[in-house]
Amino acid sequence: MFGAGRIGKIHAANLARHPKARLRYVVDVHDAAAAELARTHGARVASAEQALADPAVNAVVIGSSTDTHADLIQRSALAGKAIFCEKPVDLDIGRAHACADTIARTGVACMIGFQRRFDPTFRALKQRLDAGEIGAPEVLLITSRDPGPPPLDYIARSGGVFKDMLIHDFDIFRWILGAEAVSVYATGAAPEFAEIAAAGDLTTAAVTLRTRDGALCQINTSRRAAYGYDQRFEVLGSRGLLQAGNQRPTEVVAWSAQAISQDTPEAFFLERYRAAYALEIEHFFDGLSQGTPLHPNIDDGIKALELAELATRSWREGRALDCSI
Amino acid sequence: MFGAGRIGKIHAANLARHPKARLRYVVDVHDAAAAELARTHGARVASAEQALADPAVNAVVIGSSTDTHADLIQRSALAGKAIFCEKPVDLDIGRAHACADTIARTGVACMIGFQRRFDPTFRALKQRLDAGEIGAPEVLLITSRDPGPPPLDYIARSGGVFKDMLIHDFDIFRWILGAEAVSVYATGAAPEFAEIAAAGDLTTAAVTLRTRDGALCQINTSRRAAYGYDQRFEVLGSRGLLQAGNQRPTEVVAWSAQAISQDTPEAFFLERYRAAYALEIEHFFDGLSQGTPLHPNIDDGIKALELAELATRSWREGRALDCSI
Amino acid sequence: MFGAGRIGKIHAANLARHPKARLRYVVDVHDAAAAELARTHGARVASAEQALADPAVNAVVIGSSTDTHADLIQRSALAGKAIFCEKPVDLDIGRAHACADTIARTGVACMIGFQRRFDPTFRALKQRLDAGEIGAPEVLLITSRDPGPPPLDYIARSGGVFKDMLIHDFDIFRWILGAEAVSVYATGAAPEFAEIAAAGDLTTAAVTLRTRDGALCQINTSRRAAYGYDQRFEVLGSRGLLQAGNQRPTEVVAWSAQAISQDTPEAFFLERYRAAYALEIEHFFDGLSQGTPLHPNIDDGIKALELAELATRSWREGRALDCSI
Amino acid sequence: MFGAGRIGKIHAANLARHPKARLRYVVDVHDAAAAELARTHGARVASAEQALADPAVNAVVIGSSTDTHADLIQRSALAGKAIFCEKPVDLDIGRAHACADTIARTGVACMIGFQRRFDPTFRALKQRLDAGEIGAPEVLLITSRDPGPPPLDYIARSGGVFKDMLIHDFDIFRWILGAEAVSVYATGAAPEFAEIAAAGDLTTAAVTLRTRDGALCQINTSRRAAYGYDQRFEVLGSRGLLQAGNQRPTEVVAWSAQAISQDTPEAFFLERYRAAYALEIEHFFDGLSQGTPLHPNIDDGIKALELAELATRSWREGRALDCSI
Repeated sequence: MFGAGRIGKIHAANLARHPKARLRYVVDVHDAAAAELARTHGARVASAEQALADPAVNAVVIGSSTDTHADLIQRSALAGKAIFCEKPVDLDIGRAHACADTIARTGVACMIGFQRRFDPTFRALKQRLDAGEIGAPEVLLITSRDPGPPPLDYIARSGGVFKDMLIHDFDIFRWILGAEAVSVYATGAAPEFAEIAAAGDLTTAAVTLRTRDGALCQINTSRRAAYGYDQRFEVLGSRGLLQAGNQRPTEVVAWSAQAISQDTPEAFFLERYRAAYALEIEHFFDGLSQGTPLHPNIDDGIKALELAELATRSWREGRALDCSI
Repeated sequence: MFGAGRIGKIHAANLARHPKARLRYVVDVHDAAAAELARTHGARVASAEQALADPAVNAVVIGSSTDTHADLIQRSALAGKAIFCEKPVDLDIGRAHACADTIARTGVACMIGFQRRFDPTFRALKQRLDAGEIGAPEVLLITSRDPGPPPLDYIARSGGVFKDMLIHDFDIFRWILGAEAVSVYATGAAPEFAEIAAAGDLTTAAVTLRTRDGALCQINTSRRAAYGYDQRFEVLGSRGLLQAGNQRPTEVVAWSAQAISQDTPEAFFLERYRAAYALEIEHFFDGLSQGTPLHPNIDDGIKALELAELATRSWREGRALDCSI
Repeated sequence: MFGAGRIGKIHAANLARHPKARLRYVVDVHDAAAAELARTHGARVASAEQALADPAVNAVVIGSSTDTHADLIQRSALAGKAIFCEKPVDLDIGRAHACADTIARTGVACMIGFQRRFDPTFRALKQRLDAGEIGAPEVLLITSRDPGPPPLDYIARSGGVFKDMLIHDFDIFRWILGAEAVSVYATGAAPEFAEIAAAGDLTTAAVTLRTRDGALCQINTSRRAAYGYDQRFEVLGSRGLLQAGNQRPTEVVAWSAQAISQDTPEAFFLERYRAAYALEIEHFFDGLSQGTPLHPNIDDGIKALELAELATRSWREGRALDCSI
Repeated sequence: MFGAGRIGKIHAANLARHPKARLRYVVDVHDAAAAELARTHGARVASAEQALADPAVNAVVIGSSTDTHADLIQRSALAGKAIFCEKPVDLDIGRAHACADTIARTGVACMIGFQRRFDPTFRALKQRLDAGEIGAPEVLLITSRDPGPPPLDYIARSGGVFKDMLIHDFDIFRWILGAEAVSVYATGAAPEFAEIAAAGDLTTAAVTLRTRDGALCQINTSRRAAYGYDQRFEVLGSRGLLQAGNQRPTEVVAWSAQAISQDTPEAFFLERYRAAYALEIEHFFDGLSQGTPLHPNIDDGIKALELAELATRSWREGRALDCSI
């Protein structure tokens, strides 16, 4: 396990529950964090070198900071380890492609952590869509909003809203529609957030994608939804509509003189995607133990990154971009 | 009353209920329709000339076919009559401007039939937004879908999906955000509708608008929602979200072994906007009898038409258009 | 039209819209109210004698105070007029039976104003139940709550909560299950309403009914639901569940940092049952003009009254009552 | 751990996750089941004697069949072990009282497995009620329906629907209202289930309870809800209403030409109360390690059982029972 932070803890706990997996090493630049996570799961602290040199290690889970992903993918692949890596592969397309080349050359299994594909609601919708319940998909609307902006220094290193937040939504677009974009248009703003604007980023954005078959996708995002974490999408097909809604912490409904009210959505991604995180790690180790293909793979990681890059350019240049060529 | 068709009947019935209004003449090229509507409300059939020449007529309601609007507006204005006219003013911007000039010169009151502003749900949302409930609006999402495409010959005369259907949504955009667009981007397709595509029109479209203040608007539409007429929008503000949903014919909920299910939305615009049609006519005659301003007025009609024209161009040219100049 | 009060105005306006009906006389002890209602609909003020003596009068609508119902039913029947009478027939079972006898003897048509049977939601549920959608009904739950208690002097004359409020729910029970009760149990309280308790009445009550076939019904009521007028029921059948919910004034949904909220239900019965009042009057005049049977009839009025009386006794005596004999 | 069946496995897995708990022995008459559960959690198979004789065992979890509960409670208490016991204490009130006496005499901690008190939705509602959000509770409505009846031989041993199913709801009544019943009325039927009727049991039941303060409670149940497991309740207070709804497996909403539909509720109690089972075991071991009181305790178990017995008698005798004495 590379990374003993917030997401590392989640992956480690899920890994520990898998009957075919055992956590052997925790690697983190923060010694105390590594030690605590290792202790919790009966593992040892090690350096990357030590862990990758151990032939008993068959797979790595990369949950360290974004700037370490590409290097760890390269070294793990060369060491012959199967790889689970958090999104994004890298903020730089060139380095991401180099990783994909190494994966291809070494033939190691590699899965990218777009956990939303494993969300029970999203997955059920995808299965019903694939089963033909609403016919061919024609319009996809994605709402993807964070409860509040991250610290300014995080934003500065984040690659911008399209690579940081919307990369997940670009993956949803490709996964749900089962097609690639032929055009991308993005616009956005940073109302009331002058410092974020000054840092060259946005707090609201609107993206439009179009596939070769003419399916349309609109994504809207905000870094600040006062009511919490909002993750919904809907697909209009030729025979109906499928919507994926938020989850609520409880099913209490209160009727007062003012309103009938329910809980706001789960607070943030750790709560909202708790099941998804468990299911993606299960998919990874099931796939490894059974020899079945892993999804989403590094190509999915790169395609989403390319769309994020195109969206960033579209916004900066104020024009729609053709990406069919 | 000009026009004794579907919408003419509705306006006439609403007019008949207003304490300050009396229907005097019905004008329609179809004699039988005119006669029947006149009989229902104790009015007489007349030609446009006769009706406009009668000094006892203070106001006209124009609900005849789109190609007659501009001419009737001009003649009614010159005859000094107050005017309620169904959207659009005209499919041609030039003729619409000429109407506005005549209205301005003659000083007659003129209201355009964007009835959605009078829908109880939409109006309540607008009032709560204006009262500051969610702070400044940042993102507006509009879903506007018809249950099925109209006949091909209608489509050919309709001016296309942006002028025919989305003109209402452009008005919603301007009304809800209280601002004008500085950029427009539109794309669309006609999947499974080769004849509509051949006629130069679309069945699905996605439009993105941006205001000077950076508020974003995404509109999605379809000429064929298998489940019925779908009219929703939502506004994200700095302090929360307001959504306007569909109405259902009944509040029956059925729990079966397969699903928990509710009614689909009201079937089409006559059902969905029944209250709105009544309230807009009430607003028109209240305004006339009290001397208060009428909204939406002919400038609103022209602004929505201009956005429809820009969206059509954006789609045809495959690029975002700057409309701030 | 007997009665020019709140409900009289509603009936008169609905009557005025029916193509086969014309309002000829308004009768009310309050001259001014009678005069105003008569003027609105082009009718005349008259005494009961005058109105009933006019052979041009074919039907009467009784919307005057409860204590006048029985007398007006008797006199109208003897005068050969068809009768629409607001619930209840009378607070006294003996007098109600005498009315039924006169109706039977004179053969006039008579309909009782249990308007809830005409509520679009309730009616749609009933049709789906009758169509077999959920199999045989086994459990019926009725929630029936007023927004606030009426004045104490009204309560004193009301016959108590079972005859005043729940009589409607007893009719719903009989109509939905299509069966009669074999046992009745009622209990209740008047928490925080010492004066109502002192007047011998309740503010909350719980009633249980059982049919010969073993279908169960639970009714709960309150004279004070802080959030408004609450009128719901649900039927569990062998193959599923059907619920009838409240209506909301608008379909606005607000997402704040605290909650996701919707409108409370329509404020009170005039708003909630607006459509039902129109449809019951339409049913009455349609039935008269077409010679088809009227429902609910005076027997329905008496059966509901008998259940209200049994429930009152059950509560007072603190025991379940057998009503199968 | 006594019992290695369905519920035993759940408790064992939850126990295994608690930092202060370790599973030492599994006791079950089915050797293979005991062995497998023991192996899963690194425990050993033992007889009751062996397990209770081990001084290293501080606590027992009783999840074996109902007829073993009382004996195991007695022996565990005498052995000085803290006890978590599934509901019911026993089907016989006398034996249950004997258990309570032994618990009192030995002073061991004892918690009864009314897991619904730990359901996140129910618990949140209770907290909001206690915080005064809706004022004093006046009416409690409980819907408690199973997806289908158990095998006939289970029903014969179950103590009947009131002790088998509604015992949970009697506990909810006492917990939510924080008061005891002064009267009980129950009725029921077994439509379409002649064999269950012949076995002296019911498939539908309706219970009414009243507290000294006049709060009313209606419980309705069914052994066969075609749409699944239905667990809802609502509390009307002087200032509003709180409802606790079902959970759905996913938040997918489908719009078809026929209906707008959602998932039916979680299939049955293992799914619906998954979180509750985890939280009650956490509460048990937290309480033991911190020395804080355990709820619900054996008195709660007895009080619910007494209400179940009274309801059974009320139904059999066809009359309301006074239980205030």
